[in-house]
Amino acid sequence: MNDESGLNRNTITFTGGTLDRADQLRVHPDRLAAAWADPRAQIVLLDGLDPLPTDEGLLATVPVAADAVLADHALLGLRADGTPVFVSLKIEKKDEPPGNPPRVWGIVPLLSHEEAALYGGARSLVDWHDRHPFCARCGAATYPAKAGWARQCGTCNAEHFPRTDPVVIMLAEYEDKVLIGRGIRFPPGRFSALAGFVEPGETFEEAVRRELWEETGIRTGRVDYLMSQPWPFPSQLMIACMAQALGDALTLDVEEVPEAMWVTRDEVRAALAGEEGARFIGPTPVAVAHHMLRYWLGE
Amino acid sequence: MNDESGLNRNTITFTGGTLDRADQLRVHPDRLAAAWADPRAQIVLLDGLDPLPTDEGLLATVPVAADAVLADHALLGLRADGTPVFVSLKIEKKDEPPGNPPRVWGIVPLLSHEEAALYGGARSLVDWHDRHPFCARCGAATYPAKAGWARQCGTCNAEHFPRTDPVVIMLAEYEDKVLIGRGIRFPPGRFSALAGFVEPGETFEEAVRRELWEETGIRTGRVDYLMSQPWPFPSQLMIACMAQALGDALTLDVEEVPEAMWVTRDEVRAALAGEEGARFIGPTPVAVAHHMLRYWLGE
Repeated sequence: MNDESGLNRNTITFTGGTLDRADQLRVHPDRLAAAWADPRAQIVLLDGLDPLPTDEGLLATVPVAADAVLADHALLGLRADGTPVFVSLKIEKKDEPPGNPPRVWGIVPLLSHEEAALYGGARSLVDWHDRHPFCARCGAATYPAKAGWARQCGTCNAEHFPRTDPVVIMLAEYEDKVLIGRGIRFPPGRFSALAGFVEPGETFEEAVRRELWEETGIRTGRVDYLMSQPWPFPSQLMIACMAQALGDALTLDVEEVPEAMWVTRDEVRAALAGEEGARFIGPTPVAVAHHMLRYWLGE
Repeated sequence: MNDESGLNRNTITFTGGTLDRADQLRVHPDRLAAAWADPRAQIVLLDGLDPLPTDEGLLATVPVAADAVLADHALLGLRADGTPVFVSLKIEKKDEPPGNPPRVWGIVPLLSHEEAALYGGARSLVDWHDRHPFCARCGAATYPAKAGWARQCGTCNAEHFPRTDPVVIMLAEYEDKVLIGRGIRFPPGRFSALAGFVEPGETFEEAVRRELWEETGIRTGRVDYLMSQPWPFPSQLMIACMAQALGDALTLDVEEVPEAMWVTRDEVRAALAGEEGARFIGPTPVAVAHHMLRYWLGE
């Protein structure tokens, strides 16, 4: 759906999910049990944390087995025809082969747009459970609650909710060029929009200005929001912005951004087209940075 | 500063902080120790988690005492003249007297705009440490790290970072009225913009549409971002949006929103002015919802 804002935001990977999250079922055990008992109910299969696409671009699913336990699963929601979709919270993480980009970026494009969005949310949720088995308040064991959308401490009774960490990602613009950087963990030649976590006590416009100042020494005027993207590695909410730089002299924080440069429209176009001799290797189409550069090109 | 977007976002409480967060000092122990040893260094005093405003609207501070321990403090940043500002991570929480709004909403307006922003970030950070003494991964004790901007597990070595939880807050608009609701914990007569946490796997436009659908049965078209506000009770990032409703028939989730109604510009104006006989009691000026309503009025 084009939301009439001038940006077709729903073409971005991990957006455009179509399941009804059916939040009321999470807190009504009888309604949740009825969804679990629905003969149509599906359990999404993951390979470690990675998706398993079918030939039709769907996530592979299995019916609810006779010995499956509801409490070990999260309700992802209901499909348009009412089919309940669950995912197991018990995973066996697999070793990731070395390399950047990670393997999963190559698998996600095999999914339809809607199923990629379903996968993104499921991956964040499953991974959060896996990484948070204990209570940060008292140290005791916690267990899944609210159909997998919370964990409850069995000792101090604290409730814990999945993290969603806002991250600003921005293109600074100056005299018809934009600023891109090579993060410390990027392979040589790969550049993208700069990014950083929003900290307690700041708006995201303030986070944009702070990150640009800290990492590149650039001061910024106006900041405009473009689009957001859930990024399930593990659970960021990417908030994409354009920032108007007040100058172009760079002072890099080389511990974070060893290289940064101002690039022209032609240079961006060549990089996104993967042209031989392009000045840099651009961000994957899976990432919002790719769409930010396309937006800047007016595409 | 007016950021030229047509919204003077920096008039909103908890925004407009002026400290340099000086993130490089957090990871360089020698530079951090030098800031701690700076004779100008200040430690912000809190009353439990509440601020202690001076007559000049500043946060009360004390110098670094001879027996104070750097590891028990967070570096909030540097003032424009280079003065380092810290806050103690060891607090004694106080009982909150019953009542809504909470006491602190009455104290914050006694602070200058910049100091309220400093307080907001400090409160979120201090409270996060207080509520997260143990490792969610292994259950062991954790200790402050990175100048108070992280916690480190002494057993499994996991690093944990402060939470910032994105929340969408929105006004649905239909035929020149906006939709406001009374949350389940609001006192009678008090209404505000509807709000809800962004969940893993959704953009914030999608979260706006989902929340309006879940809580009021309204379907939504275009969603526009207005402004964001850090809300330190305990650590939300409020993302304020206008949503264009596709109809006005309400079906309330009365467990979350027992009352909701469409209000006219005159009704909003009367409520924000605190007029006798106004149709509802509006949100406090401390909250972004107040500014969203003023924005809608064109003020």
